[in-house]
Amino acid sequence: MTVTIAPVKSAPLGFFDSGVGGLTVVRAVQELLPAEDILYLGDTARLPYGSKSPETIRQFADEDTRFLISRGVKAIVVACNTATAHALPSLRERYKLPILGVIEAGVDAALANPHAERIGIIATRGTIGSHAYQHALALRKTGLIIHGQATPLLVPLIEENWLEHPATAMVLKSYLDPLVEKGIDTLMLACTHYPLLIPVLQELLPADVRLVDSATTCAEHLKNELQRLDLLADSSHEGKLEIHLTDLSEEFECLARRFLKRAPGRIQRAVLG
Amino acid sequence: MTVTIAPVKSAPLGFFDSGVGGLTVVRAVQELLPAEDILYLGDTARLPYGSKSPETIRQFADEDTRFLISRGVKAIVVACNTATAHALPSLRERYKLPILGVIEAGVDAALANPHAERIGIIATRGTIGSHAYQHALALRKTGLIIHGQATPLLVPLIEENWLEHPATAMVLKSYLDPLVEKGIDTLMLACTHYPLLIPVLQELLPADVRLVDSATTCAEHLKNELQRLDLLADSSHEGKLEIHLTDLSEEFECLARRFLKRAPGRIQRAVLG
Repeated sequence: MTVTIAPVKSAPLGFFDSGVGGLTVVRAVQELLPAEDILYLGDTARLPYGSKSPETIRQFADEDTRFLISRGVKAIVVACNTATAHALPSLRERYKLPILGVIEAGVDAALANPHAERIGIIATRGTIGSHAYQHALALRKTGLIIHGQATPLLVPLIEENWLEHPATAMVLKSYLDPLVEKGIDTLMLACTHYPLLIPVLQELLPADVRLVDSATTCAEHLKNELQRLDLLADSSHEGKLEIHLTDLSEEFECLARRFLKRAPGRIQRAVLG
Repeated sequence: MTVTIAPVKSAPLGFFDSGVGGLTVVRAVQELLPAEDILYLGDTARLPYGSKSPETIRQFADEDTRFLISRGVKAIVVACNTATAHALPSLRERYKLPILGVIEAGVDAALANPHAERIGIIATRGTIGSHAYQHALALRKTGLIIHGQATPLLVPLIEENWLEHPATAMVLKSYLDPLVEKGIDTLMLACTHYPLLIPVLQELLPADVRLVDSATTCAEHLKNELQRLDLLADSSHEGKLEIHLTDLSEEFECLARRFLKRAPGRIQRAVLG
């Protein structure tokens, strides 16, 4: 079944992620497109997505998308690398509103530097195993040397706010040493949680390794797409953010504040159909 | 609505957990009750439970229980500390077959040593926050000094099989130092994943701290309860284990093998109603 929706400019943008990590993308979009209303869905009852099977991720992403569509969004951003890797093609096939992922944006950001040749990717096991980044990079530029490294302990460490704990540096060193030994010039942070690690990554990595995350480029892609489709909100409007989570806890509220870098406002419980 | 089921001796025992951690309890039951058939449900699509809210855990536990009842089990073991802490009373109220948790068993095991006075508990944030262990201990013996410590990074480290990695020792030291400083004589491993950490815990802790996990005691409780209700399987029967997971992946199969200490046989996908 194909579902077609006629979008309107004043409708909100829909974002979804397994949890609150996707709020790093929301923050970049709020900066670039302050007039847009945003409806954010975090599937905190079933997080994480990064360790689960492609079939399960596709089912969850489909339910997340239906929730946002039922709320009348004009476009959707899959603000989760694992869901983008496994589910973006099937979502685009099924739902006829604009749906953007974070992978194309990440690849654009990495290749914005014409000297990028040896690219390391850190991400969940699901994202690395999908080879979505590796394929997207190889399609865009020949001769790249690409190393993917699954880094499943980083999300738990970030969520614990152990950014300065020596154990985090030790875990990162285990993950990064093999990439540094291979002489990477670019490190892609292919998980929406990872921007919070940038200060500690800058300390641990050689100064000439460029760190790339997809949030800013994703916001630019979104702006271009909305312009092209004549769907940008009226610039006089003051955009609002509404956050819906499938499981509510104080912990998720604190996390949301850290990812957004400001108070998240009222958070509501979402029940998926 | 109260659901009453008339159990039969030859029916299987039902176990559920958020993932494969509960297989440490299954292993103990297989050793003590080799004639029993076992049906195990791991809710791997929605794991972990330990970081989620009490309401969500109760809903998941209810769905897990219904799945097992629909398969005709004669009794249920909630082989997950977080689910026991948040959901056991409501499950017992709702379903009239024998339902055992792991907390009573853990408390029995801890207090089997009459000299236990200062008890440390390590567990998920959900289990510690529920105060279920703290209350159960205090009800059983007055004058105990009890320290609960949430240790949310241990499950991810165990699932990564980083048992020997120096980062695991460093994380454990951060968690355990405050308990050791308080002079604990007993450490309760209040998560079904933690028995895998026993060798590294023995290295890190003072020799006079007794480690207690609930698996063996839980198996004994189950045996007594089945005897009392005349529900023990015929001793000439050779018990079989059937594992159902809500998400299938190779990773979970490897984990299941580590928790069971043997090949898990065929694993099936469970769809919860």
